[in-house]
Amino acid sequence: MEYVGYYNGEIGPLSEMKVPMLDRSIFFGDSCYEMANFKNDRAFVLHDHINRFFNSCEILGIDFRMTKEELVSEIQKVIDANELKEGSLYWQASRGTMMRSFAYGDKKPAANLIMYTSPGSLLSQTKTFSLKSYEDIRFLRCNIKTTNLIPAVLYSQESYENGCEESILHRGERVTECAHSNVIILKNGVLKAPPKDNLILPGVTMSNILVLAEKNGIPVEIAPFTMDELRDADEVIITSTGVPCIQGTRLDGNPVGGKDEKTLKYLQKLYMDLYYDNVGRTELLDEAHYAQ
Amino acid sequence: MEYVGYYNGEIGPLSEMKVPMLDRSIFFGDSCYEMANFKNDRAFVLHDHINRFFNSCEILGIDFRMTKEELVSEIQKVIDANELKEGSLYWQASRGTMMRSFAYGDKKPAANLIMYTSPGSLLSQTKTFSLKSYEDIRFLRCNIKTTNLIPAVLYSQESYENGCEESILHRGERVTECAHSNVIILKNGVLKAPPKDNLILPGVTMSNILVLAEKNGIPVEIAPFTMDELRDADEVIITSTGVPCIQGTRLDGNPVGGKDEKTLKYLQKLYMDLYYDNVGRTELLDEAHYAQ
Repeated sequence: MEYVGYYNGEIGPLSEMKVPMLDRSIFFGDSCYEMANFKNDRAFVLHDHINRFFNSCEILGIDFRMTKEELVSEIQKVIDANELKEGSLYWQASRGTMMRSFAYGDKKPAANLIMYTSPGSLLSQTKTFSLKSYEDIRFLRCNIKTTNLIPAVLYSQESYENGCEESILHRGERVTECAHSNVIILKNGVLKAPPKDNLILPGVTMSNILVLAEKNGIPVEIAPFTMDELRDADEVIITSTGVPCIQGTRLDGNPVGGKDEKTLKYLQKLYMDLYYDNVGRTELLDEAHYAQ
Repeated sequence: MEYVGYYNGEIGPLSEMKVPMLDRSIFFGDSCYEMANFKNDRAFVLHDHINRFFNSCEILGIDFRMTKEELVSEIQKVIDANELKEGSLYWQASRGTMMRSFAYGDKKPAANLIMYTSPGSLLSQTKTFSLKSYEDIRFLRCNIKTTNLIPAVLYSQESYENGCEESILHRGERVTECAHSNVIILKNGVLKAPPKDNLILPGVTMSNILVLAEKNGIPVEIAPFTMDELRDADEVIITSTGVPCIQGTRLDGNPVGGKDEKTLKYLQKLYMDLYYDNVGRTELLDEAHYAQ
């Protein structure tokens, strides 16, 4: 199997897996989730994802009853059950199964755990993204990785229909993030990233790129930036679990970035080195791409 | 069966019904829904709900392939399959079943239809609500009845834990609505309701109450109102499908309303008359409650 599904311990082909109608993810989107890459049966920066996941559960009051170690063990079962050498692993905890009621009342139901694997590996860093901008109308707790994702669906579909790979969201002039990625910019050799407040998801990939930059002599500035700063940036960089430091080259039909490819490609190399060091370096890096 | 479940034509006991894991309501909350009351196998103001439902589908781009008449027929099957004399019927359309992807791409999947019935009838109008207020942090398309309901869940649970039956949401000073109801106020004999903009759900119950008021000599004013106006109102009235014109008597621990019970009870009587005229008048009204 390539697409392995999992529900509360039961494993089977994803397309045949079912969830009780009374699971609260169905009526309320009352769930949080994570997605991690894996290769050679090893998940990449899994503990970063697990820590964020437990934080989401805690903020939402979802009663997830496994320990972190038990969750790692369940995740490994799903990775082991599939035949993929490389892919992505998704997991989600809903608030549980109960008759539909907004308030769940005095007794918290036990969370339900959904997982699946799918082929999709990291996007090639030779890809570039066209971007389309939108006013960010999402709810004001974007730091929680919930499955209340209709705005992200609508932005993504409209961007797709306009030939774009991601959406740049902004509240007024302030850039927040993308529909399902973070965005950071390079200007005069400085990597600028937004603060981890309630308006953005604290991206695991973004965080690791910022740490790598600082460790390797690229100054990092954490501060909100505007749409004008993004349009004027030397490079616009999109990051998410499947999108490892991808260059944004167009915004709303106009060219953007492309003025500091040396630093961009150095960041890309640092990130892929981290990836392969974690999951086992079994493939040659595309050195030609990284060379200047 | 009292709790009847339905999924794309299949009917069974709700607790045994299942939904494919790849239904988009599970990963994205990518669905819209409605809930209507029924009595004597007749749904109340069903066409109001159906019109709003088709509007939600259209705004979201959900490809719901039944006609309104076909949906009415499916709804009637579910009502007929249960043994309840009176209850509520819930239905939901998700964007369909497909591998998880934010953008659904070139070809819209066919919507999936979920339904269920449950006992709960209209709340007795002798009940009163204690209310708790919150800054409204929801997304800015509250006019669409989606299943992205985590904020409503969190407000409702916190209100419940504080001994309150509903939540009053406000953006700054402007009152929007409740976590899962509308709120209108009476002041100097005028019924004041918020405009049907993107910040509130255009409530079927609220709309019918406003029509009844106008037809029966109670002036209606459509305009945003503030938290101060709500605190100073003669009556605070909560309305939703299960909450037929209920008096709010406390807000954040302080008394509120209670100064124009005559008009309030007249509105309640008008609404229940409409209800019984539609579903068949099989029970005596509690005239003592309405009498002044």
